[in-house]
Amino acid sequence: MLNSAFRGKIYPVNPSTDEILGLRCYGHIQQIPDEIDLAVIAIPAPLVLETVEECGEKGVKAIIVISAGFKETGIEGAVLERKLLEVCRKFGMRMQGPNCLGVINAYAPLNLTFAASMPRQGAIGFISQSGALGTAVLDWTLKEEIGFAAFVSLGNKADLDEIDFIEAMANEPHVGVILLYVESIEEGERFIRVAKQVMRKKPIIVLKGGVSSSGAKAAGSHTGAMVGSITAYQTAFRQCGVLMLQSVEELFNVAYAFSTQPLPRNNSVAIVTNAGGPGILAADASEVSGVKLAVLSEETTRELSEKLPPSSSIHNPIDILGDARSDRYRLAVQAVLADPLVSSVLIILTPQAVTEGLETARAIVDLAKNRDKPVLAVFMGGVNVEEASRYLRENSVPCFGFPEKAVRALGALTQYASFLDRPESKPEVLYDVDKAAVRNIIDSVRQDSRVVLLAHEAADVMRAYGIHAPFARLATSVLEAERYSEEIGYPVVLKVTSPEILHKSDVGGIVLDVKSAEEASSAYSSILTRVSRYMPRAQVYGVTVGKMVDQGKELIIGVNRDVQFGPLIMFGLGGIYINFLQDVSFRLAPLSLEEARDMVSETKAYFLLKGVRGEKPSDINAVLNTIIRVSQLVVDFPEIVEMDINPLFVYEEGRGCIAIDVKITLSRS
Amino acid sequence: MLNSAFRGKIYPVNPSTDEILGLRCYGHIQQIPDEIDLAVIAIPAPLVLETVEECGEKGVKAIIVISAGFKETGIEGAVLERKLLEVCRKFGMRMQGPNCLGVINAYAPLNLTFAASMPRQGAIGFISQSGALGTAVLDWTLKEEIGFAAFVSLGNKADLDEIDFIEAMANEPHVGVILLYVESIEEGERFIRVAKQVMRKKPIIVLKGGVSSSGAKAAGSHTGAMVGSITAYQTAFRQCGVLMLQSVEELFNVAYAFSTQPLPRNNSVAIVTNAGGPGILAADASEVSGVKLAVLSEETTRELSEKLPPSSSIHNPIDILGDARSDRYRLAVQAVLADPLVSSVLIILTPQAVTEGLETARAIVDLAKNRDKPVLAVFMGGVNVEEASRYLRENSVPCFGFPEKAVRALGALTQYASFLDRPESKPEVLYDVDKAAVRNIIDSVRQDSRVVLLAHEAADVMRAYGIHAPFARLATSVLEAERYSEEIGYPVVLKVTSPEILHKSDVGGIVLDVKSAEEASSAYSSILTRVSRYMPRAQVYGVTVGKMVDQGKELIIGVNRDVQFGPLIMFGLGGIYINFLQDVSFRLAPLSLEEARDMVSETKAYFLLKGVRGEKPSDINAVLNTIIRVSQLVVDFPEIVEMDINPLFVYEEGRGCIAIDVKITLSRS
Repeated sequence: MLNSAFRGKIYPVNPSTDEILGLRCYGHIQQIPDEIDLAVIAIPAPLVLETVEECGEKGVKAIIVISAGFKETGIEGAVLERKLLEVCRKFGMRMQGPNCLGVINAYAPLNLTFAASMPRQGAIGFISQSGALGTAVLDWTLKEEIGFAAFVSLGNKADLDEIDFIEAMANEPHVGVILLYVESIEEGERFIRVAKQVMRKKPIIVLKGGVSSSGAKAAGSHTGAMVGSITAYQTAFRQCGVLMLQSVEELFNVAYAFSTQPLPRNNSVAIVTNAGGPGILAADASEVSGVKLAVLSEETTRELSEKLPPSSSIHNPIDILGDARSDRYRLAVQAVLADPLVSSVLIILTPQAVTEGLETARAIVDLAKNRDKPVLAVFMGGVNVEEASRYLRENSVPCFGFPEKAVRALGALTQYASFLDRPESKPEVLYDVDKAAVRNIIDSVRQDSRVVLLAHEAADVMRAYGIHAPFARLATSVLEAERYSEEIGYPVVLKVTSPEILHKSDVGGIVLDVKSAEEASSAYSSILTRVSRYMPRAQVYGVTVGKMVDQGKELIIGVNRDVQFGPLIMFGLGGIYINFLQDVSFRLAPLSLEEARDMVSETKAYFLLKGVRGEKPSDINAVLNTIIRVSQLVVDFPEIVEMDINPLFVYEEGRGCIAIDVKITLSRS
Repeated sequence: MLNSAFRGKIYPVNPSTDEILGLRCYGHIQQIPDEIDLAVIAIPAPLVLETVEECGEKGVKAIIVISAGFKETGIEGAVLERKLLEVCRKFGMRMQGPNCLGVINAYAPLNLTFAASMPRQGAIGFISQSGALGTAVLDWTLKEEIGFAAFVSLGNKADLDEIDFIEAMANEPHVGVILLYVESIEEGERFIRVAKQVMRKKPIIVLKGGVSSSGAKAAGSHTGAMVGSITAYQTAFRQCGVLMLQSVEELFNVAYAFSTQPLPRNNSVAIVTNAGGPGILAADASEVSGVKLAVLSEETTRELSEKLPPSSSIHNPIDILGDARSDRYRLAVQAVLADPLVSSVLIILTPQAVTEGLETARAIVDLAKNRDKPVLAVFMGGVNVEEASRYLRENSVPCFGFPEKAVRALGALTQYASFLDRPESKPEVLYDVDKAAVRNIIDSVRQDSRVVLLAHEAADVMRAYGIHAPFARLATSVLEAERYSEEIGYPVVLKVTSPEILHKSDVGGIVLDVKSAEEASSAYSSILTRVSRYMPRAQVYGVTVGKMVDQGKELIIGVNRDVQFGPLIMFGLGGIYINFLQDVSFRLAPLSLEEARDMVSETKAYFLLKGVRGEKPSDINAVLNTIIRVSQLVVDFPEIVEMDINPLFVYEEGRGCIAIDVKITLSRS
């Protein structure tokens, strides 16, 4: 704290001494003759609770508990942590930690961590669930000359969590980009709500620990946190625009670019290089990162061809040859920066016989100033480019050692720019859903002590929410089977209805294409006979009579309620293809029409729906509408923990779609 | 040359001086009173040809032409380069370059490049098609303390190419791993032959420039080389086991691990860490890199639980906690190294309050010595871990700054180890193919001045190679249509046969399920009537009468002859699904049975063939056999430049498969 040149007052508290590092030390917090904004607690765990209570009595506004020995150690620790939180709540104090490394604010300046040195000032706000990762990274960025605005170690997140700190950083003017390392997010729905808003102001970049099954296992044993479904995390991040990266280094390379560069207008980049190979590698990396080589304007092409040596390649990547000195770099970079068809510039330098590293770096810094286009540099090599690279970084031009890294950072800038370009989409509001009808059905299922809806009940739920489903009735006698068949109109299908029979056709529980009352009556009897033979102990509710429908393209819409993020909706091809194709997409409800459309169009099934080999296109709009209605249903009824429409038949444009088999499962209570 | 402490004799040749750097300088090569092994030529391009001629006359064995100004500059340069090659051939001289940076042998020692400093000695042999990339990387590796055995700059590859240097490095005892940066490989089939052999002795790692369309365009304009199909390159590399990587940094990280570490016995790794987060990230990276967290033996688990502090996590990743000093690292690393269930060890260190970086590094070096398991380190941070990281690298323990990099390197070691474990597979030899029959068909097609085989011709080719195809005859009259239908046996299919009609059904050119001579006669006439109405100018050869076959699962087998690598065989799902699924796999012919099996099993179609939802499995062996026969066919007949079996119907196990529609296209001459 002292080393960080903090300008506020510091009061050490410790009963065994009168002075610490020249400051008067108090034996008890009550003795401090001042109001306390923040208490940092770093004492053995058994003493923490009492101390926090004392902080509360003193009127302290917030505390940071650095001490370990809480939830991460087991049940006893978890009980102690819960007590800590109760004390905080009682006094209206907020708490960071316990088991954390504290916080750094580079502009206060204030270093409340036990990281040895203060980071360089910059625009990165870094929130980390792993303290050690945080300090290691701070140490590394010091070497790499990457600057920070703030660093927060989350610890056990008993009170304040990543969402609170994201909100705080969103309002902190020094923070230009928010970096997040998390292993778990507990309040998923709140995360999405907050992140969606913050992303409109500044980018959030995340590295999620525990994305693999072994990683998740390790994360679970490490923090005692519930890691949850990685699909839900990925879906949540994508849906609110948060950029998810794959490694610590990438996280900081990208943040570094964000914290120094303006956003590109679009995805077109010009590459200027003094060597062919690295230019090619940059071009290769572009395609993967969603960046495109700009087609230069005629004017730029003319200028380059007039002023560069004849062997130069004046098409993008612009190869200004191995003997390029700084003046040739200046000329080429100036030309592409001025080109309206270029929205970002990447400059590659390899040290060759006459290369002027530092001079070139100066030219780049000079040209990049006051430009509204991002400029990134790649200076390849070791000792020969060290000084020049440092000069670039000190002057806010990101400089990387390899082309792929620069391109990936540029890809992230581009991705965020295009996110901001898309209008915010709002969940659809449906005016024609019959909530009361669904409530009645659910109540009657509960009264029946069931959690799985019967086929006709599920079909009724669909219809209450405007989703087409074949009309169906549950017959419990031959007479009913005949009557319902007549009412529904032939041909009909009869299916056994029992919560215990999952594969109805295996036990002879389905009769298709029933065309008369006589057939209906005999189908009813034969189904019951067969079922009682194959599964004599199954509880049978009766036989569902439903309208027989034409075959359509088979799709599937599924919902699984994620513990952290809420209803996770899945869309994909149905039928036998679902199993081996794994061609599905996910979104979290509630959904906007745009999100439903993205969801459908990012599957390969989309090509099939658009019509292959001259087939007529399918009724995609009807599918989108169904997805939105499903989304509304599971948002309105949190007790629906799982549902599946499999298959959903879709017909050609204008002919709609229909939910053939629907399974709905309720929560136990 | 002088700086590199070369122990042989050096004779400068230059007409304008008598002495260079203390060495006597000769005006003309003929004046040198000695035999010359190698001449390095670095003079203006217009003088090179004459000088090379003089070298030839002097009896020089090999030359390196560093001078630029040849093929890379355009047509004139290409002509000059060709003349250079002719002179070399005339005198039996071999040539490296032109337009190259020369060669370094770190053990001779000899530096014939204009790279300023000699690299550290090591086991990496690096062959680069980009000179500037080569020198930049040499500079970088000097900083990173990565050692080399040899570096070769390929230049324009007029004579010696990457394959020659791979062969040379294979026989060079100092080279432990061969690194390759290439933009093009001209002699693809030779590359595969050589690489397959070399891979059994030492690993080849490749970075291919120009894998994207814009990268390929840049590569083409850069070297004037034909870059070719990236699919063919990827297939070639995979098929001979060559490890293809995605970035320069990865290339060297992996090479560095190969050049210092033994190969792991299998893919099980133990991770020892003093921080949870980085351990989780390493575990996450493992799954992607094909490495698995080892399940520790009971003995190791017991030992760790006895000796480590109680809060440690003794399951893999082994978290020895933030307060671990070097002795605790030593204990844990020793235990896992001794565990027979562990085949590699990854040690992660983050600098914390009591961490002993250098001491821990010493312990690791000590334990890693004389072990037959790879040991890799990740020391995260900047200044705080610098000394320790250097110590590790100087003592041949690869040390990385981030866990993902170490895991990826370990993944490459594992991949190579498992490649060596698989027996070499030999292309199948077929004894029952009728080459003469195919030769006759091709000859008659040629006589007819066609390049596309007619349906019945293609079917005959299939049958000559033991591939089932419905029996078919070309009818050119009503009588023939009737007779052939009778011969083949009903039901039959009639299809118009014309090189100009691609979509036969669109013009009414197909009649299915013909069941009698009368139906055949009317089908024949109506087909010709319809075709003459819709496409009056199409040349019609007649109507093909073929056996009608039952519907099977639709597959596709395709062949495209790649200019560099030869016949590229494709396998995937047929029917309407082929278009949108893009679920296909590739191999280069000739194929072994194992390769055909890999090819099928790496597609998602494989799940369909194994039988989904209780379906019977398809006759996969028949499909494999068909693929091998196609492979043999296109190897035997280089004039087949393209062929497609689409669809190939496959039936259930024991019922085989049959080629329904076959298109074969010959080369123009």
